[in-house]
Formats: sequence, C-alpha cells, structure tokens
Amino acid sequence: MRPAALFALALLVSTPMLGRSDEGMWLLNDPPKELLKEKHKFDLTDGWLERAMKANVRFNSGGSGGFVSAEGLIITNHHIAADALQKLSTKDKDLFALGFYAKTRADEAKCPDLELNVLQSIEDVTGKVNAAVKADLKPAEAAAARRAVMSDIEKESLAKTGLRSDVVTLYQGGAYHLYRYKKYTDVRLVFAPEQGIAAFGGDVDNFEYPRHGLDFALFRAYENDKPAKCEHFLKWSETGPKENDLVFVTGHPGTTNRLETLAKLIHRRDYTLPYTLYRLRTMEAALTQYGDQGPEQRRQAATALHSAANSRKAFSGQLQGLLDPAILKQKEDEEKKLFILFFAEPGQLASPGTKKFDTLPTVKIADAQKTYRTFEKEHALIETGHAFSSDLFGIARHCVRLADELPKKSPDRLREYRDSNLDSVKFGLFSPAPIYKDLERARLQASLTFLAENLGGDHPTVKLVLAGKNPAKRADELVNSELYDPEVRKKLVDKPSLLADSKDPMILLAKAVDAEARKLRKRYEDEVEEVERQAYAEIAKARFAALGKSVAPDATFTLRLAFGVAKGYEVDGKTLPFHTTFGGAFERAAAMKNREPFELPERWVKGKDKLDLNTPFDFVSTADTIGGNSGSPVLNRDGELVGVNFDRNRHGLVRNFVYTEVQARHVAVHSRAILEALRKLYDAGDLVKELTGK
Amino acid sequence: MRPAALFALALLVSTPMLGRSDEGMWLLNDPPKELLKEKHKFDLTDGWLERAMKANVRFNSGGSGGFVSAEGLIITNHHIAADALQKLSTKDKDLFALGFYAKTRADEAKCPDLELNVLQSIEDVTGKVNAAVKADLKPAEAAAARRAVMSDIEKESLAKTGLRSDVVTLYQGGAYHLYRYKKYTDVRLVFAPEQGIAAFGGDVDNFEYPRHGLDFALFRAYENDKPAKCEHFLKWSETGPKENDLVFVTGHPGTTNRLETLAKLIHRRDYTLPYTLYRLRTMEAALTQYGDQGPEQRRQAATALHSAANSRKAFSGQLQGLLDPAILKQKEDEEKKLFILFFAEPGQLASPGTKKFDTLPTVKIADAQKTYRTFEKEHALIETGHAFSSDLFGIARHCVRLADELPKKSPDRLREYRDSNLDSVKFGLFSPAPIYKDLERARLQASLTFLAENLGGDHPTVKLVLAGKNPAKRADELVNSELYDPEVRKKLVDKPSLLADSKDPMILLAKAVDAEARKLRKRYEDEVEEVERQAYAEIAKARFAALGKSVAPDATFTLRLAFGVAKGYEVDGKTLPFHTTFGGAFERAAAMKNREPFELPERWVKGKDKLDLNTPFDFVSTADTIGGNSGSPVLNRDGELVGVNFDRNRHGLVRNFVYTEVQARHVAVHSRAILEALRKLYDAGDLVKELTGK
Repeated sequence: MRPAALFALALLVSTPMLGRSDEGMWLLNDPPKELLKEKHKFDLTDGWLERAMKANVRFNSGGSGGFVSAEGLIITNHHIAADALQKLSTKDKDLFALGFYAKTRADEAKCPDLELNVLQSIEDVTGKVNAAVKADLKPAEAAAARRAVMSDIEKESLAKTGLRSDVVTLYQGGAYHLYRYKKYTDVRLVFAPEQGIAAFGGDVDNFEYPRHGLDFALFRAYENDKPAKCEHFLKWSETGPKENDLVFVTGHPGTTNRLETLAKLIHRRDYTLPYTLYRLRTMEAALTQYGDQGPEQRRQAATALHSAANSRKAFSGQLQGLLDPAILKQKEDEEKKLFILFFAEPGQLASPGTKKFDTLPTVKIADAQKTYRTFEKEHALIETGHAFSSDLFGIARHCVRLADELPKKSPDRLREYRDSNLDSVKFGLFSPAPIYKDLERARLQASLTFLAENLGGDHPTVKLVLAGKNPAKRADELVNSELYDPEVRKKLVDKPSLLADSKDPMILLAKAVDAEARKLRKRYEDEVEEVERQAYAEIAKARFAALGKSVAPDATFTLRLAFGVAKGYEVDGKTLPFHTTFGGAFERAAAMKNREPFELPERWVKGKDKLDLNTPFDFVSTADTIGGNSGSPVLNRDGELVGVNFDRNRHGLVRNFVYTEVQARHVAVHSRAILEALRKLYDAGDLVKELTGK
Repeated sequence: MRPAALFALALLVSTPMLGRSDEGMWLLNDPPKELLKEKHKFDLTDGWLERAMKANVRFNSGGSGGFVSAEGLIITNHHIAADALQKLSTKDKDLFALGFYAKTRADEAKCPDLELNVLQSIEDVTGKVNAAVKADLKPAEAAAARRAVMSDIEKESLAKTGLRSDVVTLYQGGAYHLYRYKKYTDVRLVFAPEQGIAAFGGDVDNFEYPRHGLDFALFRAYENDKPAKCEHFLKWSETGPKENDLVFVTGHPGTTNRLETLAKLIHRRDYTLPYTLYRLRTMEAALTQYGDQGPEQRRQAATALHSAANSRKAFSGQLQGLLDPAILKQKEDEEKKLFILFFAEPGQLASPGTKKFDTLPTVKIADAQKTYRTFEKEHALIETGHAFSSDLFGIARHCVRLADELPKKSPDRLREYRDSNLDSVKFGLFSPAPIYKDLERARLQASLTFLAENLGGDHPTVKLVLAGKNPAKRADELVNSELYDPEVRKKLVDKPSLLADSKDPMILLAKAVDAEARKLRKRYEDEVEEVERQAYAEIAKARFAALGKSVAPDATFTLRLAFGVAKGYEVDGKTLPFHTTFGGAFERAAAMKNREPFELPERWVKGKDKLDLNTPFDFVSTADTIGGNSGSPVLNRDGELVGVNFDRNRHGLVRNFVYTEVQARHVAVHSRAILEALRKLYDAGDLVKELTGK
C-alpha cells in the first residue's frame, strides 16, 4: 500500500478518542487502556483485569457468569440457568417455574451436564498457525493444514497445563489466540427465583425497556466434592450504579458481524436470515402447540420454547437492521474505505471482469456466498442438523461419528472430536438429563416436515430420511429408540462394533445420512469457510497496518470487556430513566391485569409490603453487548459487581452489524434488587451473608 | 379413444355401487339419486332437494348456514359468525369472547358488511362458454374470450332475474354452470354463546375428536327492515341423529384437489404448501405477539389469529398427506388410468420428447407448473397481496382499481369488478367496521418483512414497496392513512380524479405496485390458469365419456350435497363413540385444570347442575366435507336439521386429495345440545320456540 493511501485512510476512519463511542467488545489481552483513560479518566490496571478475567465464568450451554464468593458461588441469569433447571425438574417438581433454594450445602442440586470454563490465560498463536499454512496450498489443503496445526497447539497445551485449550479465530481469520480454561463439571444449583419474576413480561417484554425482571440464579462450583476455593471473585456492591456511572460488562458475547463484508451481509439478509426465521417460527409453532396440550407438556417444552421465541425476536431485529438502507449504506461506505487499502489511488478501483478485481478479498468473499447459496439449506438441514430437532438424533450422531473418528489421529478428525475436546463431548453425551418421548416426537415431526418443505419431497436425502413414510409417521417410528438410557450410549461408545448390528431407528438414521452430511460439511469448510478466512486475513492485515487494533474483533463466545455509562434515553420524546423499581413491576402487573406473562408469583404479591418499592430493579447502560453476554457481571470502577446483564433493548438488536449509543442499551438486574429480594422475600440470609460478608 | 380402451378403463375404475364409499360433494343439479337408493335405500326427491337448496345460506365471508324459521332465522357456526362478532365489538363490549343474545327483535345487531347468498337455481352453460372460446385462439386470447362470455352470461342473468349471478367453473374447466342467488345484506346478529364454550379446547382440540364445542350462532336476514319471510326453512329435529343414521351435509365446501394431476399435487407439495405454511406461521407469530401485549390487543387480534392458526393446522395436514407416499401412489395409479384414456393401447404410452407426449393434457399441466414456479411467490405476494396483510391496503387497492376498471366495458375488467359483482365489492369496501391502527401496523410489519424475506432486499418491487425504509419504519408510515373513514373511501370512488392528487400513503402504495401486480396476474391467468383449464377440460371430457359424472367435481365454494353415516371409529385400538356429552366437557375441563383454552365460561360452571349431562354434545359422521362446510346444516332423511357441521378430525385433513371413511370424520354440534343449552343456561325460551314451535 502506498503511504498516501494509508494517510487518506487514516483521515477517513480515525477519529479523536474523546469523540469515540463506547463501542467495543475488547480482548482482555489487548484492552482499551488509553481510550478509557482519555474518555473516562479510568486507569485500567493489570490487577483489575486479572480479577475480572479469573472471576468470570463461561457457561458452555451458552452464557456468562461470575464468581461472587471465595467458596465457588457463581451468579448468572435465570434464563442461562434454565437448561439446568429444566433438567433437574420432574413432573411434580418444576424448578424452572417455581424456583429453588438450597438452605444447606447438602441441598445444593448437582446439574447433570453443566460445564463451566474459567479463562486463565491468552496467548497469541497467529504466527504459528499461519506458518503451518503454506501460501501455495489449495483451499481444501489449507483448511486441513489449519485444522491440524490448531489441534496440535491445543493438544500440546492441554498436555502441558492440564487446562482446556482452544485456539480461537479472531478477526474472521486475521488472528489466532490460544485460550486456556480451568474447567468445572461438578456444578450445583443453589438458588433460582420463580420464572414469573425472573422473566416477568415474558416474550412481550423481552428485548424491551423499561423492564422488571429478576433474571438471576446462583450456582456453586465444586472440586473433589467440595466447594471450589476461589482466589478471584467479585465483591458485591451494595449500592449498585448511580446515573452516569462508568460500568464494565465482562462476559462472552456470542457472535457479531461488524467486520463482515457487504456481500456477506447481503447474503445474510436475503438467504441466511429468511431461512433462519422460517425455521424458528416453525419450531416455535410446534413447541407452542405441544405445550398447549396440558401443564406437563408445557413444562417439558418451556425452555425450548423460550429459546426459540428469544432467537426469533433477536433474528427479526437483525433482519430489520439489514433491511434498513441507512445501515447498509454505512457498511458500503466502510467497504469503500477498505478498497482504498488495496489500491494506490481511490480513482483506480478495479472493475468487475478485470484480473485485479477478482483478487480483491471482498470479491472472493462475495464469490464464496454465491457458492454457498447452492447448498446452504442442505448444509444447515443435514449437517448442522436443523432437519433433526431431537436430542436423540444428536446422541445417535455422536455415537456414530465417535466410532469413525476416534481411530484417526486427532488433527485428522472432525474438529469437535479433537483430543482436547473429547471430555466435553462425552460429558454431554452421557448426561442423565431426561429426554421426553412425546416432545421428541413433536420436534421431529416439525423438523422433518421442515426438511421436506425446504428441499422438496423428491430430494434424495428427503426420501432417504423419510424412508417411505410421511414426517408424522416417521417421527412415530424414530422415537422408539433405546438411546434415552445413558448406559446404552456408553456401551455404543465403548464398543463401536455394536453399531454395525444396531437396529435402533435413530442410530440407523444417523448412519444413513452421515455420508451426505460429511460431504456438505467438507464443501462448506473448503469452499466457504476457508475462502472467507483467507480473504478476511488479507483485509485484517491491511486494517491492522493502517489502524492498529483500534477496532475490536467480532464476538466469538470468548471473554471480552465492554464499558459504558449507566444512563437512560429518549423514545418518542419521552425520557426513560436509567433504572426501574420494584414498585414499577407491581404497577405493570396491575396494568396488564395480572395476566400471564405479567402474573407476579404469589410470594411477591403477598410479600409486597415487606419490600422497599423504591429499590432499583433493572438498569441500562451503553456498554456494547450481544447474545452470549447474558449473565455477564456488570462491574464498577472498583471491580465490584453492580449488576448482572440479561438483555438488550430493541434498539440494540442491530448491534450485530453496527453499534450506536443513541438509544441502544443493554439491560441488567441491579445489585440492590437481588439483595432486597433475597433478604425480604426469600428468607435467604445465609446467601446474603456469603455475598456481602454481612 | 378406442372402444377397447374405454372398456378397459371402465373395468379399472368403476366399482359396484354397493361397494362404493360415501365420497362425494355432489352438485344439486346432478345428485346421486341412484347411489343413495342402492346404498342407503333412500329416495332423494326433488322436493327434498329444493328445500335443502333454498333453505341453505352461503356466508360470503366464507362458510355455510341454513334458515331455521319462517322468519329469517339462520343458524351457522360461532367461528363463521366470528368476523361479524368482532366487527360489532368494542373495547368495552367483546361480543366475540362474551357472547350475545338479543332478547327482542329491536336488540338484534346489524352486521356492518355481512352478505348472505341463497341459491335459487343452477343452469348448465358449458356449451355457451365453450362456443365463445374458439379452438384456434392463443391462451391469452382464449382467457379473455372466456372471461368475456362469463361476464356476459352473468350480466344478462342479473338483468333478467335481478339475482346475483355467478358462472362457476367445475371440473377444473370441464363444465360451467350459472348459479343464481338471492342476496341478503341486512343481516342481524341474534345469538352467540361465549367463545370459551363455542371453541372449547381452542387450537389444541381444533381438528381433533372427541370434541366439546358449542360452535353455533344465530343471525336473522332482513328485507326492507323486516325479518325475511322464508318459504323454505329447516325443521328442527329435537331428537338429533342416532348411531348409524344416514345424514346429509348441505353447504359450501371451499376447495378440494382430488381431480388435480400428479404434477399439480407435487407442485403443491414442494412449492405452494411450504410457502403457505411459512406465511401462516409468520403471521401467526406476529398476531400472537401483538395479542400478548394486553387484553385489548388480544381482543383486536382474536379472529385473525384463530383464522391463521386454523389454516396452519389444515395446510399442515395437507402437507402430511402429500408427503405420504401411499397417497401419492394412489394418485399416480389414477393418473395412469387417465393416460389410457388418451391412447389406443396401454403399451403405447408416449415418451417424453415425442410430439405426442407434449400434447398430453397431464404434460401441459406439468409444464404450466414449471412456468408458475418462476413467478408464483411474486404473484402471491404482490397480486394476491400476501405482502400487504392490511385492511387498509385492500381498501386502497379497490379504490385505485375501481378508478381504472369502471370506465371499461364489464367483460374487459378484472373479473371481480364485473357489473354483476360491483354491489358486493362496494358493500365490503364501504363497511363501517373498525380498523385498528396498531394491529394494521403489526400485520404490515410482518408481511412487508415476509415480502423481503421471500424476494430479497434488492428485488425491484421490494425496494419500491419499502421506499428506502426497513419494514418496521415503512409500516409506521403506511398506517397514517385516511382510509379508516368509509366516507373518505366513498369520495375516492365517487370522484376518482381525487386519486391523482392523493397523498395518502396507502393509496400511493397501491398505485405504485399496481402495474407489477397486474402484470403478474395476467401472466398467471394466461400462462397457468388458462393452460390448466384447457387441459383439464380435455381430461374431463374423456372422463365423462368413460364414466359419466359418477365422480363429483372438486369443491368450488358452491352448494353441494354430501351424505354419510353417523358413526364412531377406532384409534389405537380404542373405539371413539359417535357423540360426546355435556358431561364429557366438564370432565375435560377438570383434566386440563380449567386452563385456557379449557376454561369453561362462568355460566357453564355455575349452571352445571341445571344441565342434563348426558345430553349429546358433538357428533361425527362419514359425510364428505372440507373447509367452507363450516356451519353447514346436517339433515336427516326427513330433511330436518339434526346438527351443525363445524370441523373435521385430523384423519380428515387429507380429504383435499383423497376421501377415506376408515377414520376420517366431520364433526357437528348435535341439535339436542343447542336446545338444552338455550333452554337451561341462556334463558332463551323465545328462540327455542321459534326453532321448535314449542
């Protein structure tokens, strides 16, 4: 790149720090120290960072949390705990709906398959990864070489440190970092409030503000059957945040798409998102219909339904964002700047059809989308598994694939079966969590029908899967599996030769589709993922050269640090305060005639007089969050916990693509709300003492 | 066709009458007299038929009903009355949910836009229609000629008789009959029970049996502000049907697809139905979300939501049917027989690529589907209007199109604007029924998004429609219309020149898309509909020659006569009785913990002791029905009303394609249930007297 272009670019995209927004999900090994200093007069020390990191917890089921006592107590969201609550519930003991409180350590309830990860260190391995991928390799070879070197690095790290070791792809392929985690698999439920107050307002208020949700739960990590000793944990702030306070959100944002090219975003808008919404609405309708059959069916389907409804709302917001011409225009302008990075003079932009044009990374990414379009639905349905919405199918596939993969060397396996990840796979696979036959049937019928809807009744894989029946009858047949029993799964994994003779309908299905599924996966990895990685690596290299790492990488469900200011915002000329109150919840319930999902739990209705109704309930800040940040501790300057993040407002739904702080906010439970409820309504003095020392 | 082939065919498809099933939605001018005589020893007299016809009522909003007194009293389903109930309701008076009873004539509530049609005569005009369509015309010319002759026949008939006159296409183009209707536009609501008992079990029990729904309502037709005098009405049977009784269902089945070719059914399976389900689930999610915001929103969205959920369930059943290889095999076998009709010897079937092959009507229909695939979604979205789920848009389109169409001669207009139909169009267009702005916004946002999901953000019509905004913001803009006010609509229709300067956003939208919408419609009419009609006419001709009219035409929302036997059936080895009882409803409510939709109305809970709990509630028979038959009177041998049809069971959902009487049943309210409820719970002695004379 010519220095002149570089200079022009710097003028175009850099802005003085003081004018910069609070955008950024920052890497903990590359934190925005200067920015915080200049903008918020805050000194981000290494000690502060280390505690924020080592007191943070990743829920492998998808979410965040934090240690809040030296004895392994962990806070997260009720909706992150939902999966465990559901699995610990039975027909007669619905912990998800009615809540839970272990008065003694002995009462703490062990979760069947909850794995927690606590980040211990980060190491930049970009050089090692890139060195292993020679420039003259074809995409499929490059992909294989990259998988191999990543697997080797992880294996070596695991052997050396005993820690779970994951090589993480950052900047869509611009950098590779090795994350080492301490792992907890003995995790016990300590406390959860009723679903009716945790998710007060339900799907109606989800992604809305003002909000009144006590969306938190407490777990405890155990080691060797004893509460884990924590050197690093978060001190509880009994005051919580005040208006305009600087706050930090530390957690594991799942996915953002801000550094993606315009062609990729348009592909999402016109292909991936419509398909995704079609799928989510289909599954939501099926789960609703299942749950409407009666109270027990409703209980069984509750978390899956919540998850589908939540995703549907989030993806709908994304689609509205990408259908907003203003947002696409912003992305187009950013992309034009990118072009300048690759050309001497802005006036000399390459034209389509020229050789130069075809070598542009943006064009390579656009071409990869064209390729992807030809098999994206098949890939999603058959390999990702959208056609088989069934716990049993997931189990069957693991059994079948483990038998094929384990004899291979680790780097040659499908990535999830690499040595360093095997324990996590088996931990989930052998989980004793209940699987409900009728719910399986309903989900399968819906997803098999969805398969046929998308590919047509004469598609060879559809015919293979349906095996001469319609989806309803095929689902009836498939749920007659023996895989409900974890012992059966263990036997199949221990003795793969049993698979050859298995007559289990789910095993037979997993075997039948495996060749096609693997073919689709390989096409995706070679023709889409690898092409994109190489192209994004080029883009990232140019961006780093011009701007350094002043832009954080897109979210990757790894630990990030965001910061912002606790403040309200205006909607339609009305200012919404930065926090709500307990009193507001009672008012909203009354306004909605106490009808579900605005029916307060009995404990709250009866205990109203005990509460200080002015207690702050939920609050908002400008910090940059996304799905996966649920359960993230919100910290103040002193690194104390002032809240637990649990949502964004609807203005924040476009955050996948652009950050704005005009109206977009994340929403958190206030630290005072939790203490007040524990003290006054839940009779949980012991927990309050453990949290506050008082 | 060679006589030998004809004979072979007759052997293949005809069966002795006594072995024939109860299949058939028969034309009243071609009733199955012999079949009834032989199979059920029943003499179908002309007098019986005339009363059944002239006492039958078509609800133009989609459904059936029957006169049940000499004073114009009409019985139908609550869910057919729902549209009127909704339109007569306000925030503080929810007739749909809470019911209605006019104690005096003066209390009877006039419906804003309910049109009823009562069939007076049928005339076969096939010869006239076909004579006007010369053999050498191109498809577009043939379509225009056919439209013209149909319009002329209708206009002439209207002028001569003063009756609403519709030329109906039967056998997909094999025959054309002129239907003349007496029209009622002053229709008043007399009685409706609570939604909680009319649709007891809601979406859960919809299309299921055993069933406990009091799904009926009563209207009264008025003429010159006085109750209509009815020469023909149905006598009420106070006993109702007994097990194994022969019963008749007279009503207006909407659509069946039994005579469609295999290619058409496969097109439905792989294109039309998946699109339809995607759309219905999308709208259902949007309406659910809207209704969840609060009681008033729920009230506003109630009927639209019920309608979407009902359609979703019906179309899901259709798709399961077409994904059942056994059903497609049956259709394929039938089609092979059809082939024999067109060839000298079964061994000489034409092969693809030969000239002979291309002239086969089945091949022409298959080719038309290939064409249709290229623009079916655009046609459905932009011309059918799925992109614009909005009452205001429908109004705007009528205003814009009336201005363009009225200056033309009637036969040259879009068919709905033919002279003989204009009054009906204006009756609906000027309806004072309320339109809710927020509901319009929610529906529009969902449907505009659905448009973009299907065609992509860069499609020219999507860009035209969204006008530089995302669907959410565009919906905000569009609902700021003046068309809520019927007076504004009247002005625009009376003075079309006002349209040119209109700044109304909905009018501007309707104008903007009209050229494209008309183009799509013309393509559909010329390249699909006309091709199909001509090909089906060929098929029908051959079928009539071989079999006469022993197979009834597919349903066309015109009056048909079906018959069957009131009897239960087996499911999973258990025999379901042919009727349920009031007592069963209370048991089911208790089993479902009285939770919505199983919450019985207070009147029923409190009045339980007054009721004879052994009263038959709903019953089933084998008669052949489909959507549109809702509200159909069920008659006994004496032509008395023994029930009101309101549903099918799920085994009957494949009736669009095949009839079976093994498990498939229609479901009707028993005539005794209605009397018992009116007498004991609703204090409606006057109504009982009018119905029974006692």
